[in-house]
Formats: sequence, structure tokens, C-alpha cells
Amino acid sequence: MFKVTFKFEHGQNVEGFALAGESLLDVAKKMNVAIDAPCNGNAACGKCRVKLIGGELDTKKTMHISDEEFAQGWRLACVSKISADVEVLVPDIASAYRSRMKVADLSSAEELQIFEKTKSDIIDAGIKFENDFKVINLTMEEPSLDDTMPDNERLMWAVEAACGVSKAKLSFAVLQKLAETLRKSAFDVKCIVTDGEADEVYVLDVLPGNEDAKVCGMAIDIGTTTVSAVLIDMLSGEILAKGSAGNGQIRYGADVINRIIEQQKEGGRKKLQNAIIKETLNPMIKEMCASIGILPQQIYRACIAGNTTMNHLLLGVDADPVRMEPFIPTFFETDSVQACDLGLNLYPHASVLISPNIGSYVGGDITAGTLASTIWNKEEMSLFIDLGTNGELVFGNSDFMMSCACSAGPAFEGGDISCGMRATDGAIEACVIDKDTMEPTFTIVGDEGQKPVGLCGSGIIDVISELYRCGIISPKGKFIREGDRVRHDQYGMGSFVLAYKEEAASVKDIEITEVDIDSFIRAKGAIFSAIRVMLQSLDFDVSMIDHVYVAGGIGSGINMRNAVSIGMFPDIEMDKFTYIGNSSLSGAYTILLSKEAEAKVSEVAHNMTYLELSNEPTYMDEFVASCFLPHTDAGLFPSVVLK
Amino acid sequence: MFKVTFKFEHGQNVEGFALAGESLLDVAKKMNVAIDAPCNGNAACGKCRVKLIGGELDTKKTMHISDEEFAQGWRLACVSKISADVEVLVPDIASAYRSRMKVADLSSAEELQIFEKTKSDIIDAGIKFENDFKVINLTMEEPSLDDTMPDNERLMWAVEAACGVSKAKLSFAVLQKLAETLRKSAFDVKCIVTDGEADEVYVLDVLPGNEDAKVCGMAIDIGTTTVSAVLIDMLSGEILAKGSAGNGQIRYGADVINRIIEQQKEGGRKKLQNAIIKETLNPMIKEMCASIGILPQQIYRACIAGNTTMNHLLLGVDADPVRMEPFIPTFFETDSVQACDLGLNLYPHASVLISPNIGSYVGGDITAGTLASTIWNKEEMSLFIDLGTNGELVFGNSDFMMSCACSAGPAFEGGDISCGMRATDGAIEACVIDKDTMEPTFTIVGDEGQKPVGLCGSGIIDVISELYRCGIISPKGKFIREGDRVRHDQYGMGSFVLAYKEEAASVKDIEITEVDIDSFIRAKGAIFSAIRVMLQSLDFDVSMIDHVYVAGGIGSGINMRNAVSIGMFPDIEMDKFTYIGNSSLSGAYTILLSKEAEAKVSEVAHNMTYLELSNEPTYMDEFVASCFLPHTDAGLFPSVVLK
Repeated sequence: MFKVTFKFEHGQNVEGFALAGESLLDVAKKMNVAIDAPCNGNAACGKCRVKLIGGELDTKKTMHISDEEFAQGWRLACVSKISADVEVLVPDIASAYRSRMKVADLSSAEELQIFEKTKSDIIDAGIKFENDFKVINLTMEEPSLDDTMPDNERLMWAVEAACGVSKAKLSFAVLQKLAETLRKSAFDVKCIVTDGEADEVYVLDVLPGNEDAKVCGMAIDIGTTTVSAVLIDMLSGEILAKGSAGNGQIRYGADVINRIIEQQKEGGRKKLQNAIIKETLNPMIKEMCASIGILPQQIYRACIAGNTTMNHLLLGVDADPVRMEPFIPTFFETDSVQACDLGLNLYPHASVLISPNIGSYVGGDITAGTLASTIWNKEEMSLFIDLGTNGELVFGNSDFMMSCACSAGPAFEGGDISCGMRATDGAIEACVIDKDTMEPTFTIVGDEGQKPVGLCGSGIIDVISELYRCGIISPKGKFIREGDRVRHDQYGMGSFVLAYKEEAASVKDIEITEVDIDSFIRAKGAIFSAIRVMLQSLDFDVSMIDHVYVAGGIGSGINMRNAVSIGMFPDIEMDKFTYIGNSSLSGAYTILLSKEAEAKVSEVAHNMTYLELSNEPTYMDEFVASCFLPHTDAGLFPSVVLK
Repeated sequence: MFKVTFKFEHGQNVEGFALAGESLLDVAKKMNVAIDAPCNGNAACGKCRVKLIGGELDTKKTMHISDEEFAQGWRLACVSKISADVEVLVPDIASAYRSRMKVADLSSAEELQIFEKTKSDIIDAGIKFENDFKVINLTMEEPSLDDTMPDNERLMWAVEAACGVSKAKLSFAVLQKLAETLRKSAFDVKCIVTDGEADEVYVLDVLPGNEDAKVCGMAIDIGTTTVSAVLIDMLSGEILAKGSAGNGQIRYGADVINRIIEQQKEGGRKKLQNAIIKETLNPMIKEMCASIGILPQQIYRACIAGNTTMNHLLLGVDADPVRMEPFIPTFFETDSVQACDLGLNLYPHASVLISPNIGSYVGGDITAGTLASTIWNKEEMSLFIDLGTNGELVFGNSDFMMSCACSAGPAFEGGDISCGMRATDGAIEACVIDKDTMEPTFTIVGDEGQKPVGLCGSGIIDVISELYRCGIISPKGKFIREGDRVRHDQYGMGSFVLAYKEEAASVKDIEITEVDIDSFIRAKGAIFSAIRVMLQSLDFDVSMIDHVYVAGGIGSGINMRNAVSIGMFPDIEMDKFTYIGNSSLSGAYTILLSKEAEAKVSEVAHNMTYLELSNEPTYMDEFVASCFLPHTDAGLFPSVVLK
């Protein structure tokens, strides 16, 4: 047994013990130390860097660590084995802690605009923005020796009379607190009710008449990488708080496949479910509630939008058949699940709505996003693109909709990129490079004076587009121009230094390498070729696209012009592009607040067909042809002219 | 801080620490050492005896401890304060551990007869003995790339087709295990289903087709003192196991009032709920399941019969209004409660039926017992008497039923009696005394050769009846004849030694004292006066009683002749009396197994009126007149002639 100490640039040390021969990454997992490991410990991504600062590690040098770095103590956790007591530094950029949770105030009007826009679009599409929560005030006769009706019957009678229904049902929680609540308030109470079946109402909660009834709801987008949520007043529709966090499952792999493999192991389903519910959602819910002074028990309904695998892992349902031919999920839609079934820290009988999946690789995030885009209500032909760890597309209009999914990898969210990161504080989200001096200028997420930490998706698009425009890289993404910022390592691999470590909030230079550029080109190629193949299968051409809705965590700073320049999106008029942000979240918000939208998303899901790209004979060729800047067929990008 | 060690005649020591000045009884409660304390620590009952065997206690001598006993180290835990390290012996008779749990095999045909008899009576009364559990076998097409219906829809379609209903609903547990179960069994499964609402079925569980589907149910009687249960095969109706245990709430007081006071304290409701669910029911369920080789998760429905307070404490519902004027329970009936709401270790979605209460002092044990007695179906006038910690009566026939309750105290179950105990191993359940030699002869519960430990209710009836018949005690219960076995203490209090400690499995002589006799006379007086007053209120006379059904934990050895002799029951023909055992349990068994009985008990509850005895002007006089052997008005007991 050896002592292992994890140190952080910010935060407390974590100490524990491990056996000789255990991998440092596995030890970190066991000790709940989150080290980003997108490739799940296969020494492929080079992201699980730690710095040896004391003791020893039995380690190998890999291509991801330079000699200089190795001399400084940098190691990949996945290939380092315990051989003695050891102390390692987990650097900021590798630590999922830093980006783990963020609860935003709502001062940013921009944040709110997306929801306001979605709401008005949905209303314009003929959907009432109304839910079935009601608060009713009841004053009952107090019981006496001549009127000994038990409390529950007394309440049911009063509710039935007030709501004009034949039957009121009480939740178990109401039964448990009823005696106290009635007597504390002299039988003058407020009830929080919703519609039950047929001619019934369901009494979810009972409060003393003089207390404010705060009826909240929570819309949650569970992404493979990032989880986002908004806390909503169900009566006014007002957004009260917004939060986001890294998905705690990240330490079991960056993509859904690795997580499904992990959940297959003994106890794995519980472990993955705990990682999302207990380690990610519950702390985030607690923090969001605290930020506005309410209790999680005041959240009476939740709506969750996530991909099919995330939905299965959330419910503790075996996700293995999702990845194995013939790719059958346990469910597309579920009957209502309750918070207490999941251990989700909300009102125990809060129903948890789950935006429906339509297949193994097109899930509730896409049906929710499609709902929010309102393309199902338009005559014009729309293309909806969700840039997540998977890329999903929906194309169609009010007559038909087709969806498909492609594996873009985590590059759009900064994964698989040496200095990649999510679009949080310190992320370079936009970049311009001076063609003459090759000096870059950035826009950085965060407060003024924030130093760069890494590159988020929209920043990578800009950097690659600018490097290409300035002739620094070739159409294949290789460095072809010399300069101070251009370096080549011993293997000849080129890189471009965006910020020297002195200028950065990082322990090393922030650079983009040929490997990074290659990763990103393959990601954008997957998207573009998917668009091409889906349109071809329908006998459509990109010129027939009336509108493109771009969604996802790539960052609101996405420059559509640059995205077209690198051949990620089709070369059509710029005014046809709209960035709609996290449409999975705005869709969940819509379903939560509108009973009609809840029915509509189910209809949208039923009406959507699915195209399995891997069954399309042209896909592989199209993908290969798309792995250039902008494309091997330059004729597809007439507007892209190198200046 | 001092070290406190509890030792037991059987079982392991329990050690802990306590502050100077804490009462030993409180310390025992905190350390989960069950010491019987029927009066809840008021130095009134003298039951919480422990023997000081090491260290010191700051203690008072009370009237319950003789000088000799005090010299031997006997102390009452409730009046003993911690003042140093201490070791005490918790004797068998005082330890609730001993009688805490018993899982019977079903070799005793007598045990089963009561249930068989109840079943045939219920069927004779026109109630179908059928429930809605079904096991259906389903073989589905396996999914393929051309048939990608998700698992839950595939199962629902198959169930709907098999059952001919329009909708199948799946429990959350089914959703969680569906993928695995289908694939383990090549889509050949068994489903356990019940009727849902209207044209629906509810799928409770899914199992591989080649596994046996064991569908069990559990009927539970929750008595204030004792909990009993039977485990039943829901498909065949067979009784698979029987169990009983002391109610773990006993350490918070012997009667409902003390427990209600305890649950009013901070955290008290949870504490009382844990005592019955986690400490009593769950271990008993586990043991019963183990005895027949099934899992608690194979119990898919439970039916509970208990008094109104027990039902409230079980559900974690505030019981205080039950004891405070105007005596309003939270519920008479509840919508279905699920096992997972209560933390009851059964199938999580098992519904927990609760036999309905009809008032604060007539609960589900009485409605279940009345159901089992079938007096609601007879033209003849029947009197149903349940002898528990409270005595409850129901009088009537198919036209009307009236109920009332009287506080008999715990004497019928051996409480408040110096050598009293429940009707478990070692209990003297019957006794004859030779009039000349005054030598007693016993029938003792347990295997042959079992030495006496104490006296259960039926034994006390016999002893008092025999002492009176032999002229050893007066009609007031005072000792009036001298003999070897008759003793008087320094205060002049008489007692009769039933077994010297050498003959007994006890650390002291087994005797009955004048205080015991007085307690019991008041208990039997409460019952008899309740019968008189209820009949008077209806203008009936005891001669108009066609049949008396006696139920309760007093012991199956109850001698009706002796019970009449001491004036506990009215002096009518002996063949009118029937002991029906634990009718609360046999009623719960009936409700569990028969949907029609479930509806019937609700009807019985609605049709039963309640007489509040304390509002009857004659009750107090009747009670006082009944506190003699057999009664101050000997004319009421013409058949009782002293020989």
C-alpha cells in the first residue's frame, strides 16, 4: 500500500492509498478525483496529464509528453503506475473540478433572450404556453366532537368543491404532513394541485394559508459532457436561476460508448446513475435553489432532455443494447417517473418528464431541440444541427422530418484538442490572426482581464479558419509557413502558439497542433458529409435549404462565416444561419411549461424518420472528401476565396 | 462520561457511554437495548428491573423492589441514574429481546385451522376468495434492424394482446430490468400483472420465462405490543410461513398514548416509524422469507391491520390529534401506499393495503377482525371482543353494528403484571389449583419440559379464577387464606407463589400479587362494563346475545368458563363463546387474498357506528361495580357458585 496525494492549483488535497501496479487514473477514479480522460485511459488523447511533484511513479513517456515536459514532471495518469508514495499536481485545465459547476445570476439579458425567443416562437406556432399547476386557497370548518371527519377526507371534499371535480387524490407526502399543516394554520391552507386522470385533481402539496406557495420546475439538458439547467417559476413562467456543471460521468469516459461499457461492469449501472444524479444533478440543484432562497422540495416537476444513452443511464436502465446491433433502447418514451424513483433531490412526488428518444442515436435532446426550433411548423425547408459530442441533424418542414447522427467526437466542446476546453471562463471563443505579423487577437469568455486558459469549440473554428486564411496551414491542416509562433517538435509535428504561458492562466503554452487540427477537421467533416448524404437521400441539394439552425455547446461566439470557410457548414447565404444556443435546454423548458408542448414533442418524435448513415453507401467517400479545408471539391464552397 | 455495560442471560453484551445523571432507562433506549417499560419510565409499573452486577448506580428503592431484592442488586432502570461505570444484567423476563421474533414452521395444524375457518366463513358469506394477480407467459419476436421497436413498447403490445386490454402500464422496476430480462431469456418472459384502472393492466414484474414466478403476499397485524404476520402464496392462497415479534416501539411506552407523546418530540415520528418498520417488520420479513427460501422482493402486496395510532405511526403521520379532543385522525382509509414510500422491505412497488380505521380508538385491527368474524352477514346478534392493549367491542348483525373501545391496559398481554409476559415460550397459559393443598398445576407454552417463565393473559384468568374458587382471595382480590405459598411483604401486600425460582426459568419466584390481581380486575372490569353500557345504549340485555367471538393475543388457552367466573364476560351459555384467535391477522389475510373482501371491509367500516363510552353517564358506575369478583351485583352471574 502506498500513499497517493492529489494536489490542485485551487482546492484541497485529496489523499488515499493504492496498491503497487494500479494505474494512477484508476486510483483517481476510486478517490473521486476527476481527471479529464476523454479516451477513458487508452493513452490516446493525452488529456490526463498530471505533474509529479513528490515520490515516484512507474511511467512511460508517450508522444503526448515532450522531453522537456517529461523533465518537468509531466506524466499521463493513464500510463503511470503506483510504485511508491507519490504526490501529483492535477493542473487546472485537466481538472474537471474547475468547470464542474456554475450557477449564473440572470443579469445577462442574453441568457434570457434565447428562452424568450423560444417561447414566442412556440406561441407563434400555435402552442399554448400553459401548464396545469394551480394553487388553491381553502378554508375548512375545524373538526369538533360533532364533526369528526378525518383530515384527509376533509381536505378531499374541500378540494373537490373548489375545483369542481369528482375526485381529489392526495400524494403520500400530503398525507404525512396534513395533520400538522391543518392545525398550524387553523384549517386555512393552500394546496398545490395538478390535473389527474379524467375528472380528478391530484394534490401534490399542502401549505399553511399564510405561507407563499412557490411552485418551481426545473428544465435540465443532460449532455454527455456538460449538464445545464434552468429553474423556473411554474406559475409565472419566470426563469429564476441557471446552472451548469460537467457531467460527473466524464471520468468513466468522454463518449457514450465508453460509458456504456463501464455500466456493463458489476455495479456499473448504479455507479453511472450516481455520477449523474448524486454527484452532478443534486449538487447543482442544491446550489441553484440556494442562490434564490428556495428549497429543492419546492421543485414540483422536472423535464429532462438528453441523448438516448444519457436517458438510460439516468434511469439506471441497461444501455448496452443501445450500442449493440440491432441497437434497441429500453424505451423511447416513458410513463411518468417520479423524483423519488431516481433519488433526485426535488419534491419526492415531482414527476420527471423525459423528452422522447426516437432511436439509439437520436434522443430526447434532439426531439426537444427540434420542438424549440419550430421547424415542424414551417413550410420552408430547415436544417437543424446540434453540435454536441455526437452531431445530430434534422432536416424537414411541416410535412416531413428526417434525422441522422454522426460521431463528431468531443472536439466541438474542446475534447480531443490538446488545449481544448469547454466554453467557460478562460476559453478563447473567437480569434483573429494578423496575416502579416501572424499575431493573434482573442475574445475570451469571462470578466475583463481574464487570461486565456484554453480553446473552446468556436475558438477552434476561428483559429483554424484564420490559420488557413493567412496561409499558415495547408488544406490538409499542415503548417506551411514559418514564424515565431510556429514550432515543430522532434517528430516534425507542427504547432502554433496562441498564447505563451506567461500570457496565459495555464502551466504551459496554449497552442494548437497538427493533431488538434486533424481531429477538428475530422469532426467538421463528419458534420458536413452527414448534411450532404442526408440531403442526397432525399434528392435535395444544399441550395434548397431555406434555413439552418445551429445548436449546441460550441459557444455563442460561433462565427458562421468561418465555419463555412473551413467547410463545416454548406456555403449558403449567411443570413440563413441562426445560432439558437442550447436548444435541448430551451426545448426542455418549453415542455416543462406547456402541456401542449409536452404533447407536441411526442408527436414530433413519432413523425420523425431516422436515417442510419452507416447504411448509406456514399457516406464514407463523402466523409473522406470533407476532411480538407474547406473540401476536396472546392466548387461546393464558391464563396470561400483565399485573400 | 461513564461506561455502561448491559449484559443478558442469553446474547451478547451491549456497551456504551453515558453522562452522569442520565437515567439508565434512557441510556438503554439510546443504545437500542430493549427493556420493557410499559409506564415509559414513570416508576409506576415496576417492570424495568435490572440487576446491578458491577460498578455503581445512583438509585432509589421503590415499592416495586423488596429489601431482599434490593440487597441482591435489583433496581428499576427508570429511577437509576448514571454516577460511575456500571454493569447491569437485563433479565429474561424484562428483556423484550427474547420474545422479539419468532418464525414458526407450519407444522401446527392448529395455526392453520384459524385461517381455513376464516376462509370458509368468508366464502359462506358470499365473498369470492380471489385476487387480481396473474402470471402471464409471453414470447415476443426478437428485434432486428427491420424491427426496432424499443423494449417497453414491445412488452406493452404483448401484454395488451395477451390480456385483451387497451393499455398496459409498466412499473418503474420493470423498466429498469427489462433490457436484461428480455435478452437473458431470448424474449420469452413471464409477467406478474394486476388489474389497473378501467381497461388497463399493470405490469408489476418481469422474469425470464424459465424461472418460477413466486407471487407472495404478506398479511400483518400490528398490535401495540405484538406484531404477527403470515406470508402467503397469492396464486394458491397457501400460507407459507408465520412470524411474530414484539413491537419495537415498546421501548417508547407500552400504550398508544405514551407513544404518541414520544412521536411529538423532535424527530419522534421518524423514530417511531423506524422502530416499527426498520427494527420490527423488516427483520421479521427477512427471517420469514429466509425460512422458505424466497426474497422479500417476491412479496408483491401487503395488507396491514392495526389500530388507528399504529397505522398513523407506521405511515409517519402525526398521531397527536388522535389523542387530543376532538380526536381526529389524519385518515380512516388511504389511497394505496407503496412499500417504497415506507421503506418496507418488499417489492418496491408492492401496494400496502391498510384495513380502514373508523375512529381514533377503533382501528383497522377491529374492522379486519369484524370482517373475519362475518358478524356483518348474520341475523343473530353477535358480540365481537378483541382483547388487546385496548379492549374493543363490536355488537350487531347484518342490519347494524356498533363499536366501542375501552382502555383495558396491557394486563391481557401480561403487561402491568409483576410476572406477566406474552403468550410465548414459558408462559403459564392455564392453571388449576388444588383447593385443599393449594398446589397449582400448569399448562405452559412451549416444548415439553419447558419451565415456567411468567404468566400470560389466559394464565392470569385461570390463576385469579382458581384463587377465588379456592377461597384464597376475596371478591376484592385480597388474600384471605394462609398457606405455604401465600406471603405478605413488610407493607402487608399479599402474594401467591406459583413457582419457586428453583422450579422456574426465572431469576426470581413467579408469583401473583394483590397489585397484579387489582390491575387485572380493573382490566376485566373495563371490558365487562363496556359490554353492559353498549348493550344498555341499544336497549339490549346480555341474554339477547346469540354469540360471543373472543379475539386477541390473550392466548388460545383461554378458559371461557373461568373468564365468566371472574366476571370478565357475561354469564351466558358456554357454547355461545368462540375464541377466534388473532382476528386482526386473519382479517388482513382475507383482505389480502380477496378483492371482494377488500371492498367489503370498507363497507363494514362505513356501516359501523361508534359509541364513545366516556360520554355515557352510566359507564363510570358500571366500571366500579365490575371491579369485583365476579361483580358487586352477583345476580348478573347466576352460574358462578363458589364450591
